Amino acid sequence: MAIERHVRIYEAPGGTYESMEVYDPAAGEQPGVLLFPNFLGTKEWDFDKAERIAALGFKVLVVDFYGQGKRGTDMESGSGLLQELTADRALMRDKLIAHHAELFKLPGVRPGRVAAVGFCLGGKCVLDLARSGADIAGVVNHGVYDAPPFANAAMVAKLLVCHGWNDPLCPPEATAALATELTEAGVDWQLIAYGHTGHAFTAESVPLTADASFGFQPDTNRRSWQAMVDFFAESF
Amino acid sequence: MAIERHVRIYEAPGGTYESMEVYDPAAGEQPGVLLFPNFLGTKEWDFDKAERIAALGFKVLVVDFYGQGKRGTDMESGSGLLQELTADRALMRDKLIAHHAELFKLPGVRPGRVAAVGFCLGGKCVLDLARSGADIAGVVNHGVYDAPPFANAAMVAKLLVCHGWNDPLCPPEATAALATELTEAGVDWQLIAYGHTGHAFTAESVPLTADASFGFQPDTNRRSWQAMVDFFAESF
Repeated sequence: MAIERHVRIYEAPGGTYESMEVYDPAAGEQPGVLLFPNFLGTKEWDFDKAERIAALGFKVLVVDFYGQGKRGTDMESGSGLLQELTADRALMRDKLIAHHAELFKLPGVRPGRVAAVGFCLGGKCVLDLARSGADIAGVVNHGVYDAPPFANAAMVAKLLVCHGWNDPLCPPEATAALATELTEAGVDWQLIAYGHTGHAFTAESVPLTADASFGFQPDTNRRSWQAMVDFFAESF
Repeated sequence: MAIERHVRIYEAPGGTYESMEVYDPAAGEQPGVLLFPNFLGTKEWDFDKAERIAALGFKVLVVDFYGQGKRGTDMESGSGLLQELTADRALMRDKLIAHHAELFKLPGVRPGRVAAVGFCLGGKCVLDLARSGADIAGVVNHGVYDAPPFANAAMVAKLLVCHGWNDPLCPPEATAALATELTEAGVDWQLIAYGHTGHAFTAESVPLTADASFGFQPDTNRRSWQAMVDFFAESF
């Protein structure tokens, strides 16, 4: 088995996008997975994570949600791009739906239901995709919960939320609000709150702050990966 | 492999207790697990669950926390016994510590660290045992979180809390209070909140209410069992 990376350039609402296909061409037909990066946009970390997901038996599209040539290199540039993307949640939704459609153009992607996993801003993306009513089997969110300023469509995706309890972007009120939203939507959901864990708990290169509110948490990184793998197995 | 049940009668604070040993005598030395029942006390449901845990490679003691001859048969009698047990949390703690010590008298129990799993009132018991500073590798709680009216000892147990989001005994404030308590204790903890799930989600014989606040939830029953199995594997 040899997993390959191929750049995929396409048009979608808002312009031209440069996503990355990550898959094993010899594996035959497999279900697809969308991977949404954090606020910096696509980068080596995402491609590496995608390879590990592909090794589980999936065709992965690492989604460029910003647009070709638009990538964050630090907190400031990333935050600017994030503001631009999230300022119009309806347009953002339309972009997400277009990326979802693009996944089916990868060679060997099984038609029908896929999974979507997102980290930080990508977590908001996968929730919004589920909220759009997209036909997705399972969604795995790693942080960022706020709902758009418009009603959800009928949701079909099962949801797994991997939550750092100390994440300042996801305080207890936001977590409870998400739980209420998903309960009212009647959708199958689970949320794992991890202690001594903050934002960006999967980011190996970011040391954990003293108050455990931000940075890599190896126990949670390992446990949430396993929870995702188990959830994928249950979703398909 | 043949798992056997043996009644175990012993003295502990408050009187005489009749617990149930559940184990495979042919299996040699194995780690121990304490199983604490719900507010009705020990019954066939617990012995059956204990057999499934024993089959994973453990010697199990199903703990009679009320005392010999004291069992609930309905909501009223069970609630009366619960009130009696929980009225004095310091005495309750001393009883729990005695049951923990009793586990090591089972044939073939490995000295050292054990696990403890509890359901509903039993969930409070395993938390209180962890709060007492008992040398326990892993504690799995299924509901009921309120802290005793005295300070915790230094806690060593890892904790997994399996939480029905709609459980009226564990509203969001109680859940957040537990998370704060465990965070301040510096202990390794995780809490899985399950949507559309209430109190008693593992009780096969209790139909789920229309508002999903009470009764059996098959998805959550299956997922929380798997989470417990994975957690045991990580704890030892």
